[in-house]
Amino acid sequence: MIPLEEALKLTLSKTLEGSNFHKSLSILGSTGSIGTQTLDIVRARPENFRVTSLSAGRNLDLLVEQIVEFEPQIVSVQNNEDISTLKSMLSGKFTPPTIVGGDEGIVEVARDKNSDTLVTGIVGAAGLKPTIEGIKGGKDIALANKETLIAGGPVVVPLVSKHGVNMLPADSEHSAIFQSLQGCPPGGLAKVVLTASGGAFRDFTKDELFSLCETDPSAVLAKATTHPNWDMGAKITLDSATMCNKGLEVIEAHYLFGASYSDIDIVVHPQSIVHSMVEMRDTSAIAQMGWADMRLPLVYSLSWPHRIPMPYKRLNLAEIGSLTFKAPDLLKYPCIDLCYSAGSMGGTMTAVLNAANEQANSMYRGGSAGLGFLDIPRLIEGAMEGAREGGVYVKEGVELEDILRADEWAREWVERKAGEGMGKKVLSV
Amino acid sequence: MIPLEEALKLTLSKTLEGSNFHKSLSILGSTGSIGTQTLDIVRARPENFRVTSLSAGRNLDLLVEQIVEFEPQIVSVQNNEDISTLKSMLSGKFTPPTIVGGDEGIVEVARDKNSDTLVTGIVGAAGLKPTIEGIKGGKDIALANKETLIAGGPVVVPLVSKHGVNMLPADSEHSAIFQSLQGCPPGGLAKVVLTASGGAFRDFTKDELFSLCETDPSAVLAKATTHPNWDMGAKITLDSATMCNKGLEVIEAHYLFGASYSDIDIVVHPQSIVHSMVEMRDTSAIAQMGWADMRLPLVYSLSWPHRIPMPYKRLNLAEIGSLTFKAPDLLKYPCIDLCYSAGSMGGTMTAVLNAANEQANSMYRGGSAGLGFLDIPRLIEGAMEGAREGGVYVKEGVELEDILRADEWAREWVERKAGEGMGKKVLSV
Repeated sequence: MIPLEEALKLTLSKTLEGSNFHKSLSILGSTGSIGTQTLDIVRARPENFRVTSLSAGRNLDLLVEQIVEFEPQIVSVQNNEDISTLKSMLSGKFTPPTIVGGDEGIVEVARDKNSDTLVTGIVGAAGLKPTIEGIKGGKDIALANKETLIAGGPVVVPLVSKHGVNMLPADSEHSAIFQSLQGCPPGGLAKVVLTASGGAFRDFTKDELFSLCETDPSAVLAKATTHPNWDMGAKITLDSATMCNKGLEVIEAHYLFGASYSDIDIVVHPQSIVHSMVEMRDTSAIAQMGWADMRLPLVYSLSWPHRIPMPYKRLNLAEIGSLTFKAPDLLKYPCIDLCYSAGSMGGTMTAVLNAANEQANSMYRGGSAGLGFLDIPRLIEGAMEGAREGGVYVKEGVELEDILRADEWAREWVERKAGEGMGKKVLSV
Repeated sequence: MIPLEEALKLTLSKTLEGSNFHKSLSILGSTGSIGTQTLDIVRARPENFRVTSLSAGRNLDLLVEQIVEFEPQIVSVQNNEDISTLKSMLSGKFTPPTIVGGDEGIVEVARDKNSDTLVTGIVGAAGLKPTIEGIKGGKDIALANKETLIAGGPVVVPLVSKHGVNMLPADSEHSAIFQSLQGCPPGGLAKVVLTASGGAFRDFTKDELFSLCETDPSAVLAKATTHPNWDMGAKITLDSATMCNKGLEVIEAHYLFGASYSDIDIVVHPQSIVHSMVEMRDTSAIAQMGWADMRLPLVYSLSWPHRIPMPYKRLNLAEIGSLTFKAPDLLKYPCIDLCYSAGSMGGTMTAVLNAANEQANSMYRGGSAGLGFLDIPRLIEGAMEGAREGGVYVKEGVELEDILRADEWAREWVERKAGEGMGKKVLSV
């Protein structure tokens, strides 16, 4: 270990003073993937972190374990009827926390005055309202809920600025960009380059994929829901296969780093070692690398601006041998262009796109309405077109209500059109 | 181009204020490779840089052009007898600069009170004295003279600290590390990884190389003096072929970043796109990438902590396709272990190693004393052994005189032993 006071003694005159710090966390989605990994990090570094409040879904058994171990002061459960169950599960063990429930409960956790950082480990538009409450309460956000910016960007960005909080990305790609930007001076950034694993169909040509969609749709479904590199949920694994995931990250990068869409590129990198990179205006590029382990970006979102020692496997490029890169095939992955397009339209259009994708993704995975893999972009495109006529595309002066209405409208539109079997007939992709 | 005030509005609360800056440069070696490239950058960015003094060797024609274009106030030439020649070449053109010469002349440039940055674009131990004068004068150093730290480290490091100047690496690898360390907090750094092209013999096995040294030494000489990736001078090209260059960079990294030798690794990366990297203690790695263009690190050594727009070719990983990495073969390249060993011994031993390598390198290239390629590490190892007996290995309380004496002793030792044909007979490698 190199003491950086030493490391930079010849080069940098000013560095952060000391590496001790303490953060108090409110965790939304404590029993999910992000939540349990966050608690693993807290467990490993009790000198840096403590938990003041938790919000969970319906996994009460795990939630009880977390409460006993981390002793939060406020706990929220998804359904109000679970409050009494949880209370009885905890009775007699020790002084139990305040237990709340439902949408109001999660907002109470987000507003917890005893925490300084809100970890948003819940999926979907449900994360938007509590995140906004956290920002209004002056908390830094460890951002693992992408809807916060993809749907909520027009509302959230001004709020972040107004309340002077830090939005710290907890996902691999945006963390990589954020890490690569540390020490970048004003005006120094020229380009953001998101890397993409390429998902399940990265070794297929467009024609091979499209023809498999015709000949063996169930093989496509099976493959589309298995990710080659990352251990992730079903929704995001399918989003990787359509590469809608990467397009959504482009939108997120736009809001997070203020990059215009023409300054955000995607490069396919099957090994998932370079997690993303930035290019400075002198043409020097800075990249963040590491194993495909979601704890790495999560740690930095919690420790920033510090670096804490973690016992993970160290990167060894000689062991990896080769890193490869290629441009994404935009015809094979129409969702990418749809995301750039929705992003450029701005306002509530990214909320429409996000909701349409979420609905189509869910229906495809569930085998609803006989949807095919290629119906996903068709339905997204249709929803974007319909949103103008449906009156839910608001470009300027967007309010939270506009976003939520656009989200709801797009889900309903996709459900209805898919049910009508309209995907293949009327849409152009 | 993304305005960083925008780019980091969600993530960083504090960044450098403004991107305007102005630096005044004194350039040692103005007609050499580093000097002319520095002047190219000054020419491209007159709003950021001006030249106040130049020091050159014997290329008076080019020096006159530089004086006319950049109008420095002090100019130094290597030989005192060239002073009058230069004066007459400049007469009548305009008010000429103060012209000085020899070792005193170069020190006068290094002490120039009108500059804030000294660019040390001269090769060898000759750069040591003027660099020390620059540091004493409170100048930041754009470091392109590696002897400053490899030989001079024990004297230079305390001086840098005492005078509070910045040592800004201008070579590709150390600049990459320096760039990757921007924003790294105290204690955050775990490891420095230097990338190496692998030089001329990277595609040879050890046995192939060693047997070619026996069967066709002139083919080895021809190949060893042609670099596969970088356009560099003959000395450093041969140092790449022996990988002594990379070992010397390990020593330089030790002094520059305060890293212990066990925390500095080498990885062979034939494409020379990843210019080096660092690993943080949370196991996240940050790397700097770019084309193999020596202007990139030079620009950053001049613009730091700013980034200035440069019209170079932009990096495109999809175009490159593949980056490969492998561990260096330490048996094939004995110079690497010798460098780690000299570094660990410390004191004047790295000056001995550096001088022995320089002398052996020069004699091998010149065909002196029938030296073979593998005699280079043999002679370095012999000089290191001899230095203890010769009394020039000083470990503690090293003074500049100790370094210069060790340097001179090692050169003489190598010249003598090589002349005696002792290389192969007495040395163990």
